[in-house]
Amino acid sequence: MNFHINKDILLNHLIIAQKALSNKTPNPALQGIKLEVYKDHLVMITSNSDIAIRLDIKDASLDVEEEGSILIPGKYFVEIIRKLDSLKVNLSLVADNMLRIEADRSDITLNMMDLDDYPELEFSEKVKSIKINVRTLKSLIRQTAFATSSIENRPILTGVNFKIDGKKLRAIATDSYRLSQKEIKLEESYEAMNIIIPGKSLDELIKVLENNNDMVELHFDHSKILFKYGNLLFQSRLLEGNYPETSKLVPTEFPIVVKFNKEALTTAVERASLLSSRDGNNAIVKLELRQDNIVEISSNSPEIGKILEEVYPVDQLEGTLLKIAFSSKYFLDALKVFNSSEVTVNFTGEIRPFIITGEYDEDMLQLILPVRTE
Amino acid sequence: MNFHINKDILLNHLIIAQKALSNKTPNPALQGIKLEVYKDHLVMITSNSDIAIRLDIKDASLDVEEEGSILIPGKYFVEIIRKLDSLKVNLSLVADNMLRIEADRSDITLNMMDLDDYPELEFSEKVKSIKINVRTLKSLIRQTAFATSSIENRPILTGVNFKIDGKKLRAIATDSYRLSQKEIKLEESYEAMNIIIPGKSLDELIKVLENNNDMVELHFDHSKILFKYGNLLFQSRLLEGNYPETSKLVPTEFPIVVKFNKEALTTAVERASLLSSRDGNNAIVKLELRQDNIVEISSNSPEIGKILEEVYPVDQLEGTLLKIAFSSKYFLDALKVFNSSEVTVNFTGEIRPFIITGEYDEDMLQLILPVRTE
Repeated sequence: MNFHINKDILLNHLIIAQKALSNKTPNPALQGIKLEVYKDHLVMITSNSDIAIRLDIKDASLDVEEEGSILIPGKYFVEIIRKLDSLKVNLSLVADNMLRIEADRSDITLNMMDLDDYPELEFSEKVKSIKINVRTLKSLIRQTAFATSSIENRPILTGVNFKIDGKKLRAIATDSYRLSQKEIKLEESYEAMNIIIPGKSLDELIKVLENNNDMVELHFDHSKILFKYGNLLFQSRLLEGNYPETSKLVPTEFPIVVKFNKEALTTAVERASLLSSRDGNNAIVKLELRQDNIVEISSNSPEIGKILEEVYPVDQLEGTLLKIAFSSKYFLDALKVFNSSEVTVNFTGEIRPFIITGEYDEDMLQLILPVRTE
Repeated sequence: MNFHINKDILLNHLIIAQKALSNKTPNPALQGIKLEVYKDHLVMITSNSDIAIRLDIKDASLDVEEEGSILIPGKYFVEIIRKLDSLKVNLSLVADNMLRIEADRSDITLNMMDLDDYPELEFSEKVKSIKINVRTLKSLIRQTAFATSSIENRPILTGVNFKIDGKKLRAIATDSYRLSQKEIKLEESYEAMNIIIPGKSLDELIKVLENNNDMVELHFDHSKILFKYGNLLFQSRLLEGNYPETSKLVPTEFPIVVKFNKEALTTAVERASLLSSRDGNNAIVKLELRQDNIVEISSNSPEIGKILEEVYPVDQLEGTLLKIAFSSKYFLDALKVFNSSEVTVNFTGEIRPFIITGEYDEDMLQLILPVRTE
């Protein structure tokens, strides 16, 4: 194995491949990057227990003298290539399974891992795939995956439910205290499907997708999903089991509807959460619709002090009174994913879930369960 | 107590005062910010076991209705003022020792601490002080304090030795494996002095000094030093004891002198340290002057691999051969503080300390002890 390539091209692909490298894998071989060198292209493969990445690298700078395959210790290789300041780099296999890296005045020899230890991975494209614009897919993930559970006691809730029905794709995430739901329209009609993708896999996926107008192809079977995007194949395992039926959780009638400037509401809740009696992620704030047409956001911590914020709703409150308390983190997380500058909070009652919607965030809803206070 | 002030003016001073706040102080009163309100100015005081800060705040926006003094819980107050987006803020003392903070639509009440618990601090200016340009003082600190010891077993080495002799001020720091020394000329002649300032205090000091052409006044006695800079008084305790005599450590004759491009030398050592057999801060690299007029930087880790970097010195090596090994962290720390683009490494022998100097870094030297290998 022996080839030259532009150093930045190599590095940019390594940075993507690195997303599927794990340092604490039970199988040490998975700390390696599998590199296959062919006459006119390279194949770079990484994987951990959740995801696998395969990159096909073709570039005008690639000059292959000898084909071959190796398993490179991932962490060291990425650090070394990152630190090089040369334009080109030459990689060649030398005696005793060592990789020689030559770049300007640097001459590095790295011990390779045993290629035979690397598991056989299948990146299986299907005949029929679902095509989604990359920006649409990224915002679908950004607007839902944050609401997955980070606690493993109900593994199914650590995933995002993707449900296709004809030309509609609905993504749902919930940790049972809040729920996020977004629906997009597909260009074609597809067979019904219902899968659960680990939230962490989706977090990694959006890091490697760009902001252009290309399409991403989704290929899947019962156990895994493959995202195909340009020269990248990104595969994730799926979560097994049935996703809970969430439609009954979402109220359909909202006697109390209040429209806010998103920015004003956000800063008021942020400030109120500073003095909540519960720390950090569990800070609880109260919201009250007052007779004087003002919305009051408050919190109170007997030892520290109290805070009272007044927010003017966009429209008149029409005399409806309401007091409700909720987690400021959940509320702020939800507000953050809206593109609209005005959001509408739809209340059903003081101890009933409420939902947030936005005029320019079509077919998205964020639901939050209130908490009971004294 | 009752006054209005521009919110950003208040915040900017709080950010400075915060540097002397400690969260883990044995005396809870020191978690507070002491605020004294006078007709035409405010005084803000913070302190911990090492440093104390006093700020005199005069500003056109300050409008005092009632004078008074309070002790404010530091962390909460700074967080709250930081989160306000109003232009002005009103602070007033209300019943039961509470501070009311009013800003736009925010109304916050904070429980105050007991002012009587706050220690009496003395910020004592002396008749005679030393004046140093603020930029000169900042670079003096930046170029020496990093070499202090972070280990407490020889407390004296955690400080920087300031020694004045007539019109010369010499600062020295060493952790016994490396030494940093810088000398500046003062505008006037002063009485001899020899003090040791904790390195951590100096690190905090340079964060609050600006980059203008103002002068900093240094007032000191046997136990503390006071830096006076504009409306800021910054006081630090001094370390007791005698600073070791370091002049004998610094070789005076250097049979081998090699000039390098600083950038090329830095990147070569950085890369070589990636494959050192010792981890992180203890990475050891080797430097060899070769017969072919090239300087070789290398490291070798049997399990991982090896790296060999070639660096061309600025001038001919004149056939001198030398092999020396050292901590890459110490070497890189030292290179970082040079303003010169070319640095000279002066060697005495393979197991003797070597020093680094730079043409445009007058009266500064960085000394490093080599390590023995195999």
